[in-house]
Amino acid sequence: MSASPLPVITVPIALDERSYDILIAPGLLDAASSWQGLPKAASALIVSNETVAPLYLERVRAQLGRHYARIETVVLPDGEQHKDWASLNAIIDKLLSTASDRKTVLVALGGGVIGDMTGFAAAIYMRGVPFVQVPTTLLSQVDSSVGGKTAINHPLGKNMVGAFYQPQRVIADLDTLDTLPPRELSAGLAEVIKYGPIADAAFLDWIEANLNALLARDKAALAYAVQRSCEIKAWVVGQDERESGIRAILNFGHTFGHAIETGMGYGEWLHGEAVGCGMVMAAELSVRLGPMPAEFAARMRRLIERAGLPVVGPKLGTERYLELMRVDKKAEGGEIRFVLIEAMGRAGMHSAPDALVAEVLDHCTA
Amino acid sequence: MSASPLPVITVPIALDERSYDILIAPGLLDAASSWQGLPKAASALIVSNETVAPLYLERVRAQLGRHYARIETVVLPDGEQHKDWASLNAIIDKLLSTASDRKTVLVALGGGVIGDMTGFAAAIYMRGVPFVQVPTTLLSQVDSSVGGKTAINHPLGKNMVGAFYQPQRVIADLDTLDTLPPRELSAGLAEVIKYGPIADAAFLDWIEANLNALLARDKAALAYAVQRSCEIKAWVVGQDERESGIRAILNFGHTFGHAIETGMGYGEWLHGEAVGCGMVMAAELSVRLGPMPAEFAARMRRLIERAGLPVVGPKLGTERYLELMRVDKKAEGGEIRFVLIEAMGRAGMHSAPDALVAEVLDHCTA
Repeated sequence: MSASPLPVITVPIALDERSYDILIAPGLLDAASSWQGLPKAASALIVSNETVAPLYLERVRAQLGRHYARIETVVLPDGEQHKDWASLNAIIDKLLSTASDRKTVLVALGGGVIGDMTGFAAAIYMRGVPFVQVPTTLLSQVDSSVGGKTAINHPLGKNMVGAFYQPQRVIADLDTLDTLPPRELSAGLAEVIKYGPIADAAFLDWIEANLNALLARDKAALAYAVQRSCEIKAWVVGQDERESGIRAILNFGHTFGHAIETGMGYGEWLHGEAVGCGMVMAAELSVRLGPMPAEFAARMRRLIERAGLPVVGPKLGTERYLELMRVDKKAEGGEIRFVLIEAMGRAGMHSAPDALVAEVLDHCTA
Repeated sequence: MSASPLPVITVPIALDERSYDILIAPGLLDAASSWQGLPKAASALIVSNETVAPLYLERVRAQLGRHYARIETVVLPDGEQHKDWASLNAIIDKLLSTASDRKTVLVALGGGVIGDMTGFAAAIYMRGVPFVQVPTTLLSQVDSSVGGKTAINHPLGKNMVGAFYQPQRVIADLDTLDTLPPRELSAGLAEVIKYGPIADAAFLDWIEANLNALLARDKAALAYAVQRSCEIKAWVVGQDERESGIRAILNFGHTFGHAIETGMGYGEWLHGEAVGCGMVMAAELSVRLGPMPAEFAARMRRLIERAGLPVVGPKLGTERYLELMRVDKKAEGGEIRFVLIEAMGRAGMHSAPDALVAEVLDHCTA
């Protein structure tokens, strides 16, 4: 590899003894420095999927081989529909059948699904072993890198079983985004866009001005988008690691989005697509409940559409949407709680009359 | 219920924001004060088993009914062999199918198996909901009440999947021990006895002097045994919540014991029986590795036998024992680590030559 023209950006995540660094740059997979100083152990286990493993597994194995005597691998089927007990068990079974001990380092090589499952396996194997995130999608670089949320899905709801568990390091190699299908690039942009309305009005302006560069995979633009997204998320999570308060604002668009994902069946819509469309709905609800002006919903819809994301939700029926949203983790005592925009760059949790939600669903589905 | 002749003993467990109280006394199940001040929620879920539910479930439900609008129940089959993914899933499925939210309070009503599984379910459902332990066996009152260890078993090893997760409160009603089969009372005494050699020589003297009263289920004797065991465990865990150092001494007898349990198949020996026999082996190894005198092993063997516990292990074969102990969570890089007694009331982690372990196994199995 030639030397990278871009410097390695480090975003430190400060969580006391659970602190770690996010490294962001092209060329990180093959840079020895990316892999130095990880926890010592006799073995490491790389968890990847059938799409990502052929592209990057051997390169990661080569780097890890300098630090660990034994490198095991688990390659899972690709897709959100495999974020389940069976895949989790495959990781646990591999750990046990290779007599992996409580120092074994797990390495998640892939997107958010691989990261979530590997992190959860690391959280519960022998009550906790270290793990490293190597996110290879834009969505996982901007979203899963910060916050320590790990989980699997359940037929009755998304991310219903999981743990808060922090990685030892996140290695976000921007070159891995070159192989990302356009649909997944767009899905990642949904989470980037999210950080604007909830926390940083200037960042939303920047995204609007640089969306074409992002879609063209310009490395400098991607580096800044990943860095700023991680910084904002770290700022939010740092105030509320276990999601008892402000952290919930990161779920802007997610209450509607999760309903779409569960209602359609996992794997039909990408998570980022559902969130993109969910943000259109949440923006619409923010306008209808007040005090955001109608122009805000129109602006969000334009940007989300330009990013290549769906802006019209599936017709599941209002009752089905409401039922799905009532089992959302943010619901309490059966009352749905929405993250709504209160002013550009500021969000809060609100309930809304079912009739108003029905209006939004009517307006935003077809 | 008439007023209890014994005062309610409270053992505070200080773990910063995860602090809680252990209540110890007869008559606690039906005392309104036992159930006051728990986290507010719309619903609670009682998890119990087929043996304990007919005895106590309705009484617990009646008390909880004063505080929670909806009380759900899951009754699992009884036994260590059911501490598995299937039972864990039954709890998770019940939570999801009743649309339980992230404030739902789980109540573990039963022994260590119910406590471990319910605690683990609470740790991972929606990444963590509150739970209350109502231990109904001596073993769970002295052992599971402190430390926050939750887990399920795996065909390849015991407690291999789990989490550190603290309850909101432990309600140890000594009257529930009246219905305990003698074999289970003895199994509980194994963990009580354990606290003597590892941490408190005077407590070992007290147990020897009061063993008959304990076997006769004298409430005052049981109250002190539970209190002192919880205090010692709290003192150890308080120094090392995540088991990176001193906490491992609580596993005195457990490396051999886990090998017996796994080797025989879960459910053949009770956990406390395996630990009792494992302590005989560990005492023997402490003597052979030095510096404990031979009298120590003989004393431990006499006391464990008087408590109604097995002192001779199954003939699994030395190689099988070693193989089983090498996958123990305390093993590192394939080396078995034993908790051995260094002086009466003090324990430490040691490795031992396979040949010496073989001698001990030869001496202690038949």
